[in-house]
Amino acid sequence: MPRYAFRIEYDGAPFAGWQRQADQPSVQGAVEAALARLEPGPHTIAAAGRTDAGVHATGQVAHADLTKDWDPFRLSEALNHHLRPAPVAITACARVGEDFHARFSAIERRYLFRLVARRAPVVFERGQVWQVQNALDAGAMREAAAHLVGHHDFTTFRATMCQAKSPVKTLDEITLEEIALPQGHEYRFALRARSFLHNQVRSIVGTLERVGAGAWAPEDVAAALAAQDRAACGPVAPPQGLYLTGVGYPANPFG
Amino acid sequence: MPRYAFRIEYDGAPFAGWQRQADQPSVQGAVEAALARLEPGPHTIAAAGRTDAGVHATGQVAHADLTKDWDPFRLSEALNHHLRPAPVAITACARVGEDFHARFSAIERRYLFRLVARRAPVVFERGQVWQVQNALDAGAMREAAAHLVGHHDFTTFRATMCQAKSPVKTLDEITLEEIALPQGHEYRFALRARSFLHNQVRSIVGTLERVGAGAWAPEDVAAALAAQDRAACGPVAPPQGLYLTGVGYPANPFG
Repeated sequence: MPRYAFRIEYDGAPFAGWQRQADQPSVQGAVEAALARLEPGPHTIAAAGRTDAGVHATGQVAHADLTKDWDPFRLSEALNHHLRPAPVAITACARVGEDFHARFSAIERRYLFRLVARRAPVVFERGQVWQVQNALDAGAMREAAAHLVGHHDFTTFRATMCQAKSPVKTLDEITLEEIALPQGHEYRFALRARSFLHNQVRSIVGTLERVGAGAWAPEDVAAALAAQDRAACGPVAPPQGLYLTGVGYPANPFG
Repeated sequence: MPRYAFRIEYDGAPFAGWQRQADQPSVQGAVEAALARLEPGPHTIAAAGRTDAGVHATGQVAHADLTKDWDPFRLSEALNHHLRPAPVAITACARVGEDFHARFSAIERRYLFRLVARRAPVVFERGQVWQVQNALDAGAMREAAAHLVGHHDFTTFRATMCQAKSPVKTLDEITLEEIALPQGHEYRFALRARSFLHNQVRSIVGTLERVGAGAWAPEDVAAALAAQDRAACGPVAPPQGLYLTGVGYPANPFG
């Protein structure tokens, strides 16, 4: 059976997360239902990152095995037709070999977290950013973030329900871009690693926000990491600011 | 009675337009209702631009007369509290003199029109842009737009229901920015004039899109303008791409 890889964009707001669930809407369920309109199912698709409820994606990658030999462009067009009106879109599609697995072949995940600081409620990006009211100290947040880059035991920054075998991960990069808005500021945290622990990005951003607000010193983040204790983590940032922006493979399936 | 000026941001999607209506939600009605929570009404606010149903604003300006001597910052905070959960926010507030009138004192209006060309349905900016499927020729659209800048009879580009006394207006500027997206392109048209006719921006953008798609030559736009005939206009662009971004006054009320 020919295998296809998909790059998928979605607004996480109406979904209980990526993963299919019996009684709640999921992104996986929406894509599988669209596939079933093209070929009799059931279909099972596998994704690089199983995002939580409310988390978005601009560059999720998943794969599925189909019976027909589809032209990839026509397949993506047909899926987008059947996905309407759900806020899910296939933005790239490619035929891949049987050895390609969206999750197990991935060698890099990239996440973006959008944090907006302004007094007035956000209007156009409601549900798409985490809003706080007061400006943050980007320099202090960058200094704190630098303590987290590298090979560490991230027990402090993972959900207690995290099922990864080991809390030891290599965080390759955290960058923070500060953007002046007509009113207020946006802080864009970009994180890159081979893989992440459950809630790792939201735990890190929630902790860095405390630094930006002046409640924590940058060195406190180093101490929290060294504690290897979930109780040492700052508040977990809410899901609506988080985006899975890309997945890296040894060879880019979308060329 | 002290007079206050407000800069207002709103998502036009849930509203029948700026103007208060007896039986439909309006932005004016939402702001007036919030004012009534602060001081007994009825209140009547006047705006610089009475945007149509579905049209957005990032920089609408309106004024109201109140009884109390409000601190402007506290007034904006209180209004934002009472405006929730409507997608309307006061982003600036200032005490102004009695000679300030949001509409009649204005000497410049600025609009932005966002047009996205990509195959897959837009996800995060649904209802906030006009989407077409194929890339457009930005150079041809700029060439066509240049014919419209200046002092002209814009009969071709105004709604038949337009109530302005004269169809003669001076369009000070049209700029077109082309932004490469991960998939597709965004075209941002920025227009500036002392005042606009009803549907003028959407009529112009809808016509320029025809040029960008290759259906019209740039010179056809000059001919359409010269015809001074509504029937010579291209299709009117839909409201969801249009934003009132700013209003100019002899002195900026928000400092």
